Amino acid sequence: MADLFCEPFPDKSWLLPRDFPLIDQFDSLNQNSPNCHGNMLKNNVINSSAMSKPSYIYLHLVHDYGDHDKLFFCDGDQSFLENVPWLIMKTDNYYVPSLFLIPSFETELRNLFPEKATVFHHLGRYLFHPSNHVWGLITRYYRTYLAKADERIGIQIRIFDSRRGPFKHVMDQILSCTLKEKLLPAVDMQDSVVNPSENAKLKAVLVTSLLSGYSEDLRNMYWEHPTMTGEVVGVYQPSHEEFQQTEKQMHNRKAWAEMYLLSLTDVLVTSAWSTFGYVAQGLGGLRPWILYKTENDTVPDPPCHRAMSMEPCFHAPPFYDCKAKKGIDTGILVPHVRHCEDISWGLKVVDDHDDL
Amino acid sequence: MADLFCEPFPDKSWLLPRDFPLIDQFDSLNQNSPNCHGNMLKNNVINSSAMSKPSYIYLHLVHDYGDHDKLFFCDGDQSFLENVPWLIMKTDNYYVPSLFLIPSFETELRNLFPEKATVFHHLGRYLFHPSNHVWGLITRYYRTYLAKADERIGIQIRIFDSRRGPFKHVMDQILSCTLKEKLLPAVDMQDSVVNPSENAKLKAVLVTSLLSGYSEDLRNMYWEHPTMTGEVVGVYQPSHEEFQQTEKQMHNRKAWAEMYLLSLTDVLVTSAWSTFGYVAQGLGGLRPWILYKTENDTVPDPPCHRAMSMEPCFHAPPFYDCKAKKGIDTGILVPHVRHCEDISWGLKVVDDHDDL
Ligand SMILES: Nc1nc2c(ncn2[C@@H]2O[C@H](COP(=O)(O)OP(=O)(O)O)[C@@H](O)[C@H]2O)c(=O)[nH]1
Ligand SMILES: Nc1nc2c(ncn2[C@@H]2O[C@H](COP(=O)(O)OP(=O)(O)O)[C@@H](O)[C@H]2O)c(=O)[nH]1
Repeated sequence: MADLFCEPFPDKSWLLPRDFPLIDQFDSLNQNSPNCHGNMLKNNVINSSAMSKPSYIYLHLVHDYGDHDKLFFCDGDQSFLENVPWLIMKTDNYYVPSLFLIPSFETELRNLFPEKATVFHHLGRYLFHPSNHVWGLITRYYRTYLAKADERIGIQIRIFDSRRGPFKHVMDQILSCTLKEKLLPAVDMQDSVVNPSENAKLKAVLVTSLLSGYSEDLRNMYWEHPTMTGEVVGVYQPSHEEFQQTEKQMHNRKAWAEMYLLSLTDVLVTSAWSTFGYVAQGLGGLRPWILYKTENDTVPDPPCHRAMSMEPCFHAPPFYDCKAKKGIDTGILVPHVRHCEDISWGLKVVDDHDDL
Repeated sequence: MADLFCEPFPDKSWLLPRDFPLIDQFDSLNQNSPNCHGNMLKNNVINSSAMSKPSYIYLHLVHDYGDHDKLFFCDGDQSFLENVPWLIMKTDNYYVPSLFLIPSFETELRNLFPEKATVFHHLGRYLFHPSNHVWGLITRYYRTYLAKADERIGIQIRIFDSRRGPFKHVMDQILSCTLKEKLLPAVDMQDSVVNPSENAKLKAVLVTSLLSGYSEDLRNMYWEHPTMTGEVVGVYQPSHEEFQQTEKQMHNRKAWAEMYLLSLTDVLVTSAWSTFGYVAQGLGGLRPWILYKTENDTVPDPPCHRAMSMEPCFHAPPFYDCKAKKGIDTGILVPHVRHCEDISWGLKVVDDHDDL
């Protein structure tokens, strides 16, 4: 943590003190732990008069969570949890959209976030401050490669495929999206324009990807051919780590720096399903064009879609009507919580006034 | 040719007309051809009264040429050749330095090149005009990646080694040379400076190499660490073709574009022995720092040396005293023809007033 983030509040720490009593148990907490909220519900321990008030409760909100764990998002359970001294939560999901479906949270959320679709944006900018080292990576890269451009375009390429890549259909999709949406200029394969004009507009494309192939193709295209618009286009990729290496310090620093750098672009293209992209769009306050997930190695039509809001998608939301105690489509209950563009069953917060 | 160069003179061509009589024989001309100058001398055909004046003579000035071929550089032979209607020459060497040792050429050369060490510079700029396609590659790359920098540094890396590379000792040599000679700023491995200042000087390093490894290491170094001077350093490499592919059109276009781009830098570092570097320094009018050839995988000490002049080195000069008819060190006869920095037996033209 200290390697990646600064403490957000002076003289305070968001890390628990080392002697915090429960710390040793954290690793072993899981869905079947006696103090797991879902597990307690399943075993009817809660609300039984025999129950002594627990000093802590473990909330299992990981992607593999079960129906009982999901009751966390019900008003009744919240009023119980409210009085538990310590809540310990594990999650790898951005569950904010479902908080907007808890009636008792409504007023507080409206006050905190009058513009609903800015939750991640504000929290992210308030809490996530890059460490000095990462800030060095960000500012040096920006000054060196991006600052002097007239426009900055970010393209985040994250392909969830067990094969290695790069894939031609992904490259085709990127080109198809950026050209169709006029994010990047088309090139003139006839080379009829030879010279970029003295005051040609300079566009800088920041590509992030585990592989170098996509940005190399793009860079070559704009080197080998002039653009139809007379603009010149530089293509930059800070790293190509080949595969995810979560245990390496420098790898994680670079990943964080790259998310932040993407957030500094003027126009953002992201990959469906990717947290990496969500963080960039959220911090940057950007509504990205999302590259749809490809199927059968073909370019989706359309290849991409403008996001409704800058908010991340909650990948594993509950579909449960707490009052009626039955399944329900939680993506159509209120105008500001919708199904995501990139994951049909996901939920995301959008502004009421967004025209979709 | 047409793919790489424009005709230098309007309405003229430097290509022979297709129906030029001898064209079919060009490929078969070699050291043993009856009309080969060296061969004729060996067989005592020239100057024999029986000889009918030849309508053409073939000059074999390729790197593997023999002692008789080398007599081309003698005054006596020149006065004979002067009267031959057609001279056909094959060469892969820059033999200009030895022309400066022919007494009868002296006046003409002095008039043509009052500054002696500018022969390649003037001829190159007068005759070698990039084709439209190559000019597009040059201008687009320059505008996109180099134009906005405060200073441009070219590093041409050409390693003659049968093994693949990149090599650590070569990387070490490049760093050692550029830091020692203060061509590039040192980095602060302690990361004590975090932010480049708003008006930090921007240096752009243009690397050319068949491999991408060297420039990646350099780019990473200046990304991961701040410089001691507060400058920011961007590293760019137009292509990495992996190996020489002379048959491919685009490969040759890019090679030519890269030589030209190197010539547009403010400070140039080249590799010993390489024509690629000579062309860049000559066109650019630059006295490069030459990276010495490494031996036994160790960094030479010193790692590089500033060239005496911008002229290319003649790799296979004759060592013959035409008057005395005996071997001689042709590198110490006149002040303006010296042994090269990168090849001890080579010859290069330097200016009389160069302080060495
Ligand atoms: N440096 C870098 N790392 C990446 C990139 N894409 C993925 N990674 C690595 O993969 C991790 C992404 O994991 P996660 O944040 O869960 O995002 P997701 O998998 O895209 O949803 C990052 O933390 C990096 O370690 C990239 O473009 N650049
Ligand atoms: N694009 C590119 N090609 C290179 C580079 N280095 C060598 N080559 C290739 O190798 C050839 C160099 O041959 P030559 O001109 O005889 O130069 P020398 O071998 O360095 O003396 C070029 O024409 C290219 O085909 C490089 O840095 N970039």
